[in-house]
Amino acid sequence: MSDVLVRALKDTIRDVPDFPQKGIVFKDITPVLASPRLLHDIVTWSAGQFAGEPVDEVVGVESRGFIFGAAVATQLHAGFVPARKPGKLPWDTVSVSYDLEYGSATLELHKDAIRPRDRVVIVDDVLATGGTAAAAVDLVRRLGGEVVACCFVVELGFLGGRDKLDVPVRSLLVY
Amino acid sequence: MSDVLVRALKDTIRDVPDFPQKGIVFKDITPVLASPRLLHDIVTWSAGQFAGEPVDEVVGVESRGFIFGAAVATQLHAGFVPARKPGKLPWDTVSVSYDLEYGSATLELHKDAIRPRDRVVIVDDVLATGGTAAAAVDLVRRLGGEVVACCFVVELGFLGGRDKLDVPVRSLLVY
Repeated sequence: MSDVLVRALKDTIRDVPDFPQKGIVFKDITPVLASPRLLHDIVTWSAGQFAGEPVDEVVGVESRGFIFGAAVATQLHAGFVPARKPGKLPWDTVSVSYDLEYGSATLELHKDAIRPRDRVVIVDDVLATGGTAAAAVDLVRRLGGEVVACCFVVELGFLGGRDKLDVPVRSLLVY
Repeated sequence: MSDVLVRALKDTIRDVPDFPQKGIVFKDITPVLASPRLLHDIVTWSAGQFAGEPVDEVVGVESRGFIFGAAVATQLHAGFVPARKPGKLPWDTVSVSYDLEYGSATLELHKDAIRPRDRVVIVDDVLATGGTAAAAVDLVRRLGGEVVACCFVVELGFLGGRDKLDVPVRSLLVY
């Protein structure tokens, strides 16, 4: 399935020049989400990466990571944990700040979202520089969880994000 | 299933006082998401509301509506369409502004997200005053789509949001 799916993905992702800023070609996955077959096949592929292994929680990173994350969690019969920007989670949080190309960002998890020794998969739509995913890995570990893998639909391989992650990385489509 | 599920939901939702502002008791659904069984049963209940009816797209409202919306779309074999805050969607959009209790907000859809006569379900976690859901209904109609229903996990009935919506409303748990 994977080769056919990757080709369909490539044909469906829309390149949007100069978004979110001049010089960047944004990989727009909304046409992929709008396709019932592609959405279903991506979720099934992602969940299939962990067939036979216990997964307690899927962490999805705000906000596009919520889209695939919760669907994958549902298919794996795992829980879903949102990793959010500061001030969005209503209860007690752990938080980590990390550098971006320009400036910095912060990511938070609820303190009771992961229990010690829980097996966790982190899901996001795109792996770019890896800063956000590394922050999510850090947060899960602070709560005592074990990161089984990070799973992406698209990996921008030329940005080297994979090298920032000391966990297995699964990507459906690598540019 | 529904009665048992509603009771479990009530027992699991966390009341957080004074969030996001003083005097408001926030219904925190993250403990519900973290439960594999509840997450799965809610998605199955939501999708089950539309069993046997064709649904072309599920619209999820940023950002908690992405969580259930995409999982429901996957189970319905429908497409998923994100309704986002201004400036987040990379391509051409339609947009609508609406009043909140204090100030106003804007919601956007990609112009090619819905085709004329598509049958659309709008999904969000909580129905409060109904302003956001009414804006989503408006956007879908501007693109020529037909709103089959709005579907919520929790409805804050005392806020009267249902009265703002001229489409069928399905809520799993009504306060």
